[in-house]
This record gives sequence, structure tokens and C-alpha cells, in this order.
Amino acid sequence: MSLDQHATKPHEALAVWLAPALTAVDTLIRDRMASEHAPRIPEVTAHLIEAGGKRLRPMLTLAAAEMCGYTGDDHVKLAATVEFIHTATLLHDDVVDESHQRRGRPTANLLWDNKSSVLVGDYLFARAFQLMVEPGSLRVLDILANASAVIAEGEVLQLTTAQNLATSEAIYLQVIRGKTAALFSAATESGAVIAGADEATVRALFDYGDALGIAFQIADDLLDYQGDAKTTGKNVGDDFRERKVTLPVIRAVAAADATERAFWGRVIEKGEQGEGDLDHAMALFARHGALATTRQTALDWAARARAALAPLPDHPLKTILSDLADYVVARLR
Amino acid sequence: MSLDQHATKPHEALAVWLAPALTAVDTLIRDRMASEHAPRIPEVTAHLIEAGGKRLRPMLTLAAAEMCGYTGDDHVKLAATVEFIHTATLLHDDVVDESHQRRGRPTANLLWDNKSSVLVGDYLFARAFQLMVEPGSLRVLDILANASAVIAEGEVLQLTTAQNLATSEAIYLQVIRGKTAALFSAATESGAVIAGADEATVRALFDYGDALGIAFQIADDLLDYQGDAKTTGKNVGDDFRERKVTLPVIRAVAAADATERAFWGRVIEKGEQGEGDLDHAMALFARHGALATTRQTALDWAARARAALAPLPDHPLKTILSDLADYVVARLR
Repeated sequence: MSLDQHATKPHEALAVWLAPALTAVDTLIRDRMASEHAPRIPEVTAHLIEAGGKRLRPMLTLAAAEMCGYTGDDHVKLAATVEFIHTATLLHDDVVDESHQRRGRPTANLLWDNKSSVLVGDYLFARAFQLMVEPGSLRVLDILANASAVIAEGEVLQLTTAQNLATSEAIYLQVIRGKTAALFSAATESGAVIAGADEATVRALFDYGDALGIAFQIADDLLDYQGDAKTTGKNVGDDFRERKVTLPVIRAVAAADATERAFWGRVIEKGEQGEGDLDHAMALFARHGALATTRQTALDWAARARAALAPLPDHPLKTILSDLADYVVARLR
Repeated sequence: MSLDQHATKPHEALAVWLAPALTAVDTLIRDRMASEHAPRIPEVTAHLIEAGGKRLRPMLTLAAAEMCGYTGDDHVKLAATVEFIHTATLLHDDVVDESHQRRGRPTANLLWDNKSSVLVGDYLFARAFQLMVEPGSLRVLDILANASAVIAEGEVLQLTTAQNLATSEAIYLQVIRGKTAALFSAATESGAVIAGADEATVRALFDYGDALGIAFQIADDLLDYQGDAKTTGKNVGDDFRERKVTLPVIRAVAAADATERAFWGRVIEKGEQGEGDLDHAMALFARHGALATTRQTALDWAARARAALAPLPDHPLKTILSDLADYVVARLR
């Protein structure tokens, strides 16, 4: 296979390398989201699954398994499992956040209703669960069960820490592990386990997924304040308006004097926001270097992801995964 | 153990017989619904779990295992699993139905918010999943995974058949299998499997749970039209006002002339309901014997549940389970 790495983004390179398995994943997903009597299920699911997601999580499972020399096809089932879990959480997230747009399209809760999003999400969780039982690996089931609990606990934690300026960096880390990193690390770890990799390799691929997911989510939270709506699909300041306590806010609040603390209390805790408040928040970020240190933290986690892979034997997929860690933070200024 | 069967209701007799295991289930549930950082989780869960539910589903698992001679403690984990799945579905149901009361208390979506009900429900599903992996039985996992899918598909199906007078008895049966019977039969089947019972016994206990659940749900749907709010906790006609197409309506519509068909179209499909419409519906039920034949169908399913148990060896729990099948339809007139 010839692969011009300079011209190709890492997730595109992954898609090329993993093309046969990824096609099998897509076929399996279409097959398993069908429902003879409840056509609402494939309608809602297709709306989301075919909306141009990058299939990043299933590719992580496939890549981990294939770089460990796996030649069977159970990794396809696990990859589809991971995508179903991801899609189910998106459906429920959009209900919880009362979102109206995702990936540039209206959300399912808007097109159908909250009921459909809740119940179809539950259906996808159940289908994920059926799929992950099929390979017959209790260890993989343990990994995915634990990841599901971390994800759900992180979501509830996020609900109760929202608008709370006392949120610590440790709690923020737990929230983003639940929101993003737990599924990334379960994806890579379960790929290694199904391939029968040794313990050091399983651990390395878990650590890679965990660090990659954390870097990815910190970058996402930072881009909410400095991104471009055209490339991120989000408007600058969405998190600010929704009073989310992400890392830039935590850093700015930690460095705040009494006047600044009062400002954060008003806009985030009380939710009293007016014209100019987002600009003032940006000025406070600049004064305390909150965006710059947040970027550095994201870069540090990306470096940890690369370091986790370093001891593994050379493999083209190892190179692409390492590039992927750089790529998720490369969009940051 | 002395047990005066004439003075004790079957679910109370089950609770007495299974007391040590049931105490272990309660302890395990309290332990596993804890969350160090997200106190909202045990708050919401305790509100529902401690609200005086009868623990019917976990008792079915314990009873099936113990009457098959099981002496280990994995059945306690499966019983807690089943109660967690049940509680999670109640949380999501109350969001979907926009309910304000359950078991005579305000619902979680009213006390907290829909977000908490959705996410805490997800957390309970994840905890259920962790618990069911622990006994290490792939066959039990398969049973519970399949039941989860039937439950979720039934819920979505109910959503899309609501207000649809074309709903057939076959579709109605699929909905109530998802809503109620799938978890009953998974409870009894998984209890038999964990006990290492032979195939005929596993099948008999599955069939018992399935028929019991169907009898239970048909009875519930019938009581919506003839129950007493004091004993059922529901107001007569709730399903009518919510335009649900349950068995009495299906039977009345099947026997309707053109005028009656127009009435059903107006009140159920169009949702145009006024004073006297519920009384008129009751008169149509009486004209066509719709409540009487619905009651007979519930009795038939209760008889099927008893018949499923018949080939099993004598055991005090077998007698109580058989009585339970009578009991769920005994409230019907």
C-alpha cells in the first residue's frame, strides 16, 4: 500500500488502511440497526450514523487489533459495538443538552422528539450489548461494561458540576474521561485483548486511547473559545452561554481576583449574561494565559498518547496512530 | 418454615421464603448505586428503588434458581441486575410518558429533571451490565442482552403504535412482551441457567416468566378501565386519555360498526376527547364484551404460566409461583 502521509490526514489514512474491515463494520451496523416492526429505529439511527461521522472510535478498535496481528473478524463486532454505544450517547446527550444541531444537521430530538431519542438510544445500547457478547470474551465484556459505567457516571457528574465554579481540575478530568476518553480507551484496549496481545501491549493501547481521548476533549473545549464555526460546526462561546465549566474557565477562575471572581459568579453560576460578557471572558483568559495553558495541557496529553505507543513494535498503524495524537491538537493555536 | 398460604399473598410468601437472598439483593443494590462524585445518582435511584416496589422481578430470579437447587450466590447478582434494568426502564418511561406520579409518589423527572432521569437510567443500565458480567456465564449474558433488545424494541414500537387503531393483537403482544414479559422471562430463565438446570427446566421457567408477564400486563391494561385508583394507583381511563391502543380498545374496534369506528377514530387517532367520551367507550366495551374477553385472555395466559410449571418436580417455591400466576389475574372482575 502506498500512502502519502504528508498529503493525508491520519484519520483518512486509517480509513484507507482499514478499508475492508471498516466496510464490514458499516454492513454490520446497517444490519443490526434494522427493526422489522419499529421503523422509527433505523430512521433515527441512520440519520445520525450516516451523517458523516469519522468512525474514529471503531477505527481505533480495528487498528489496535490489526497492529497486534489479529486476523479474525470479532474486532468488526467490537468496532460496531463501540460505534453503537457512541451513537446512543449522542442521542441521549442531545436530549439532555436540548441541542438542535449536530454535525451541521438538525438533531433527532428536533426531527422526531425526545421520546424517540431516549428510546432509540436505549435500543442501540441493547444492540451494542448483544454484539459485544457474541465474540464470547468475558474480559472484553468486563472492559466494555466498566467503560459504560464510567461514561454514564461522567455524564451525571457533568450535569451536577455544570454552573459550579468550585469544579476542580480533577473533577473536570473525570467528566471528560467519561464523556470521551473512556470509550476511546475501551476501543483500543478491547481491540488488543481480542487479538490476544500480551499484558504490556494491552496496557499500552489502553493508555494511548485514554490520553488521546483526553487530548481530544480538552482540544474540543478550547476550540469552543477559539474555533471557527465553519470547521468545528460550533459557534464560539457556546459553552460560555451554556455555562459549562471547562478547563479554560477553571484556569481563569483559579487566577481571578475578587472583581473577576464576581464576574464569573454572575455569568456562570447565576447565568446573568449580557452583551460584551463573552468578550470580557476572552480578555480575562488572555490576562491569565488560560487558553495558552489549556492548549499546553492538551499538547501534554497528546505527547502522553504518543509515548504510550513508543515501546510497541514498528507497524504502519502505529505510525498513523501516533500521527493521530498530533493531529487532534494540531488545530489548536 | 411454616407458611399459611391462605393468609398470605403469593408475592409476600415469596419474600418470606427468599428473605436471606432478598436481603443480600437489597444490600448489593444499595452498594452498587452509590457514586462517590455524583450524589445525584443514589438520590434519584433511592427515590425509586425504596418507593415500595414489590421486588417481583428479582424474586423471580431467586425463586427460579433456588427451586433448581442452587446454593451459590450469583443469583443475587442476577436478581440485582434485573431490578436495575427494571428501575432504569421506569426512569426512561416516566420521561417518555411525561408522568408525574409513580407508586403514589412524584416521579424523578418531576423532582429533579428529565436530564437526570435519562442519565441516571443510563447509569443503572451500565451498572446492571457490570453486575451481570460478574458471574462469568456467557449464556446468562446472552439471555439478558437479548431481553434488553426486546424491551427497547417494544418501547419504540409502543411509541409508533400509540394512537394507531390499525394496531393488531400480534403487535400488541410484541409491545407487552417488550414492556413486561421479556424481563420476567429473562429473570426466571437466567435463574434456572445459573443453577445449572437441564434444558427442559430452563425452557419451562422461561415459558412461565413469559406467560406470567403477559398475564400481568393484560391485567394492568384491563384495570386501567375497571380498577380502583386506591388499589392500582392509576385513575380509571388514564390510557384512554393518553390514547393508548390496549387490548380492550383493539377488541372493541375489531367489532365496531361504522359509527363506532368514527368514534374511536376521533378520540384515539385525532385525540379529540370531550365529556362523556370515556363513558361512551365503556358502553362500547360492554356492548361487544371487550373487557370480558380481555379478562379471559389474561386468565388464559395465567393458566399457561401454571401449565409451564406443571412438569417440574414438587417444591414449595413451585407452589408459590403457581399461586402467583392466579394472583396477578385474581384482581380482575
